Amino acid sequence: MIYSIHKKLLALCLFAFIGTCNANNADKPWRMLDINNTVLLALPHGKVVIELAPQFSPKHVAQFSALLKNSFYDGTKFYRVIDGFVAQAGPAEDSEKDSLVATLAIEGEFSMDDNWSFTQVQRKDLFAKYTGFQQGFALAKNNNSAWLTHCPGTLAMARGNEADSASSHFYFVIGQAPRYLDRIMTIFGRVVYGMEHIQSIQRTSVIEGEASIDAGMYTPIVSMKLMADVPIAERIIIEVENTEAKAFAKRIEERRARKDAFFYKKPPPVLDVCQVPIRSRLITTES
Amino acid sequence: MIYSIHKKLLALCLFAFIGTCNANNADKPWRMLDINNTVLLALPHGKVVIELAPQFSPKHVAQFSALLKNSFYDGTKFYRVIDGFVAQAGPAEDSEKDSLVATLAIEGEFSMDDNWSFTQVQRKDLFAKYTGFQQGFALAKNNNSAWLTHCPGTLAMARGNEADSASSHFYFVIGQAPRYLDRIMTIFGRVVYGMEHIQSIQRTSVIEGEASIDAGMYTPIVSMKLMADVPIAERIIIEVENTEAKAFAKRIEERRARKDAFFYKKPPPVLDVCQVPIRSRLITTES
Repeated sequence: MIYSIHKKLLALCLFAFIGTCNANNADKPWRMLDINNTVLLALPHGKVVIELAPQFSPKHVAQFSALLKNSFYDGTKFYRVIDGFVAQAGPAEDSEKDSLVATLAIEGEFSMDDNWSFTQVQRKDLFAKYTGFQQGFALAKNNNSAWLTHCPGTLAMARGNEADSASSHFYFVIGQAPRYLDRIMTIFGRVVYGMEHIQSIQRTSVIEGEASIDAGMYTPIVSMKLMADVPIAERIIIEVENTEAKAFAKRIEERRARKDAFFYKKPPPVLDVCQVPIRSRLITTES
Repeated sequence: MIYSIHKKLLALCLFAFIGTCNANNADKPWRMLDINNTVLLALPHGKVVIELAPQFSPKHVAQFSALLKNSFYDGTKFYRVIDGFVAQAGPAEDSEKDSLVATLAIEGEFSMDDNWSFTQVQRKDLFAKYTGFQQGFALAKNNNSAWLTHCPGTLAMARGNEADSASSHFYFVIGQAPRYLDRIMTIFGRVVYGMEHIQSIQRTSVIEGEASIDAGMYTPIVSMKLMADVPIAERIIIEVENTEAKAFAKRIEERRARKDAFFYKKPPPVLDVCQVPIRSRLITTES
């Protein structure tokens, strides 16, 4: 369950050297997403872009990517959508589709070797000794292990009661970070564009006294593909803030200090890692 | 700026004694909202119910309620909507409407006397010594003062750089709690029903490279009234969990302990006050 990611990161950088190994490039404020590692989710009301995290959750990303290649999710529905919590999708229960997918060993946390580092945001966080970012992803860590943390926009795999029971059902976090799910779920991506469309997915849960939502109203997935498999003219090309850049570390410190005149009284000099937005920008290509 | 609320709470309870003083009733798990203290916000895509907090922010609630009586917000727009942060509305800048409203002294925090108490949720929170609930509202406190805290669904008044410059522009929190705004803004209500419609308000901010949003697309307020001023047949009657009840304290402890089999590995026994949902239920009346 706890594995080392140092070798994987190294491999990723060697590979990326053909392009740019942004992860260790402290001077580049922006990082271009890899289209083989980016997902385009088309909902009836808008498009969403997700960055996957093979460097943290390789098996989950491999299986999810293989399912995308097979158009597995196209036509499936968000069947469990609880306001302020999660929007969960997957194939219909007990369908053939549902039963065919292999279960995965959880990738909830990992051990770090001496070369592991991240851009620290907070010491003595409520849920961990430290929080910070690595390659755009929010992490928490204690002395010997680190884990991706359940911030809004996080993509994670749902599971049954057993740790290693996740297969294809996934959820997005749509409310205040449910960090009690950290380490016991596998996070494997995050929304980098179009989060407002995730927030507009039809809720399926109602309160006491309210009429239930008919399944016909559930939000469907029109299509979900790796960006590399999307026709070039329809791709959404995104760059995200390089959280390894000096510019980002500076922004973190500015955010903590709150020197703007608006702060006539200063807040405590602490930061909630899930309340630090990582900026995205849209790259418009000439056609 | 820091004022005592004990007398006000006492007065509220004496008044409520004609009905029920739920605030101190540890046996009643639900509390009926007062229609004179509840707002019905009609958006083009759905209805939202808000509970006001005169016990914490009396001047802001008094001014806001007076504006509602005058249909002040009907037709105004959500002109500043930043995904993951806030949805802000108010009259058009430099309009006559905008200039006529008096500015308010901030009601950002208050001192407690010896009789003050709340249902504690967390000791050593990231932003405060303690967090908890009182009458459904999330609060944080240090030794001598307490304040409403910026959880998702919070309603607060916007302001300029000066502490006492709020007038009529307000915002809802729509993302991870921006608790660095605590104490320097006046929170005066919270969404108790229809938060998904607040989450679906048209975003007005775009990322770099993206086309800007035309003001014609901004989400308007169809109408916003005190529930007492809504025709009886159109009222939405809501009860909320009584956060002073023993049942609620028990639920907090269960949430901390996570005894369900799903938690094959226990999370740390801490709670983020903004990640504890306060339940609502709809009271359907016979017509």
